Amino acid sequence: MGEAKRVHLVDSTLRDGSHAVSHQFTPEQVAKIAEGLDASGVEYIEVSHGDGLAGSSYNYGWAAASDEEYLRAAASVIKRGKLTVLLLPGIGTQEDLEMARDCGAQAVRVATHVTEADIGEQHIGLAKKLGMKAFGFLMLSHMVPPEKVAEQAKLFESYGAEVIYVADSAGAMLPDDVKARVGAVCDAVNVPVGFHAHNNLSMATANSLAALEAGATYIDCCLRGLGAGAGNTQTEVLVGVLRKFGYETGVDFYKVMDVAEEILEPLMHRPQVIRNASLMLGYAGVYSSFLLHTYRAAEKFGLDPRDILVELGRRRMVGGQEDMIVDVAYQLAQRKGGA
Amino acid sequence: MGEAKRVHLVDSTLRDGSHAVSHQFTPEQVAKIAEGLDASGVEYIEVSHGDGLAGSSYNYGWAAASDEEYLRAAASVIKRGKLTVLLLPGIGTQEDLEMARDCGAQAVRVATHVTEADIGEQHIGLAKKLGMKAFGFLMLSHMVPPEKVAEQAKLFESYGAEVIYVADSAGAMLPDDVKARVGAVCDAVNVPVGFHAHNNLSMATANSLAALEAGATYIDCCLRGLGAGAGNTQTEVLVGVLRKFGYETGVDFYKVMDVAEEILEPLMHRPQVIRNASLMLGYAGVYSSFLLHTYRAAEKFGLDPRDILVELGRRRMVGGQEDMIVDVAYQLAQRKGGA
Repeated sequence: MGEAKRVHLVDSTLRDGSHAVSHQFTPEQVAKIAEGLDASGVEYIEVSHGDGLAGSSYNYGWAAASDEEYLRAAASVIKRGKLTVLLLPGIGTQEDLEMARDCGAQAVRVATHVTEADIGEQHIGLAKKLGMKAFGFLMLSHMVPPEKVAEQAKLFESYGAEVIYVADSAGAMLPDDVKARVGAVCDAVNVPVGFHAHNNLSMATANSLAALEAGATYIDCCLRGLGAGAGNTQTEVLVGVLRKFGYETGVDFYKVMDVAEEILEPLMHRPQVIRNASLMLGYAGVYSSFLLHTYRAAEKFGLDPRDILVELGRRRMVGGQEDMIVDVAYQLAQRKGGA
Repeated sequence: MGEAKRVHLVDSTLRDGSHAVSHQFTPEQVAKIAEGLDASGVEYIEVSHGDGLAGSSYNYGWAAASDEEYLRAAASVIKRGKLTVLLLPGIGTQEDLEMARDCGAQAVRVATHVTEADIGEQHIGLAKKLGMKAFGFLMLSHMVPPEKVAEQAKLFESYGAEVIYVADSAGAMLPDDVKARVGAVCDAVNVPVGFHAHNNLSMATANSLAALEAGATYIDCCLRGLGAGAGNTQTEVLVGVLRKFGYETGVDFYKVMDVAEEILEPLMHRPQVIRNASLMLGYAGVYSSFLLHTYRAAEKFGLDPRDILVELGRRRMVGGQEDMIVDVAYQLAQRKGGA
């Protein structure tokens, strides 16, 4: 075996993982987990509401504490890793980013829908002015062809993003989908490329490996696979698998699995498994915010909600179009009635 | 897309999955689940103690009912599928196989350690005499190189086995390991080839896809991923993923996921997740029967049990050599003391 290839891990237990505990981590718990991740050698430790800075709200779910309290709790214990935040333009503001920097955040991931990198320009610019490492993060990348993902990645690069992420936010991709998109982005930009998986089709780890094969060098993960829906790539499993593959992560395998089992697991509200709703979201390729509306529409029109989800995926509907679900259900019901 | 490739699914919820409920399914529960699997169109429905016919014992765990009771319960509801049993020569006997056939079993998987196909010769012969479909099933296939697996597969074929399985009993393989072994077996034999995954490294579905790519046409799975340790490939997820890939399984995707969530899930004793012990077994490539002995030896010699497991894997120790674990631990402790 040649020299080990270096992989940069971004642990998102305290950001994407917070969805799985309805954003109810306490600052003390955040400190405990961040301390464990840091002692294990995890390079980037992401701490934010599941929907990014300022996500705590009626719409996205109230968190148990403020972004500032969480960030200060994590910053107080992190010695080696880089405290990282997520920001979705439209939810988080420039003031939120300044606050995060003041709390000790060293990196920010500016996340937009895969076709809307342009709304991240200002935030990338501000991050750099604040001396933070700026990532561009393209959500729901399965919805458009590889060339389009690459085009948007180039936009992020032109704004100054130092790493570009391909995110499979619905857990809808299979390894060849990942390779095509990550490969296209790697060809298009001159900065490192990352990949963020979801496990709806049980492919999170395999897709992460596919991303590395296609040239990515940054990978997201969460202890115990915590995360929205079916969750993310399981940090401690990924570390073990990467060791078997000859990749170097800088993470202590035994330590990180102890953090998962001894610190994180007792705090979990539910096991991180693939239930039918998550499976269907991955299968149909639609985002979780559609679920509630879909169940309501299905009941109203006497349909199987799964048929609606598949149709929404076929039409590539995106967040913000929730009101169109009723139209889709109506049309499906008409079609069914006429058949 | 061309014509869909046919994949034969063997659901083992009621055999390998019974490990996860300590073999405590009742015959009524077995009937309910088998009925659901059958109505979903699952082709092979495996019903046996987790360690095969006659596994119910002090050593392997007492089951809540006899093999005969389970098989009769399943046979009474199966209309389209083939009732299947597992038999490990040395645990199950020829009389057990005759009993299974009398209860309605149509297929048997004769399972041996990957280097010991020869102890399956008589049982394969008897199965054929009884008019049952006979599978040869090579356990812990990760422990030997592809050529050796192929050699043993040829033995099974020479005894009359109609399908040969490569089983990753420790969940230790990565997709390239699977492709190498399944590919070698496909090249060596003229009968269909199958693959049985475990999810210790979160690769069960990805490895199953790798097996299909390498030429396998039979795949094992369990509802909700039930099974020993980290469990098996999750049936309902696999069915969805195979549809996305353009494979034809004959299984109704919605029906089978309803069986998983409505019938099986409420009966589960624990969520089927990857905890540290299973992760380490997959990482080290050792079988679960070593776990208890390893923890005892670790305590005696003041070692981390994980170091012992890795050393056992390195030495390719197999079941039956449990007494040598203390020797290994002693040597590790000496080495550590001298370092």
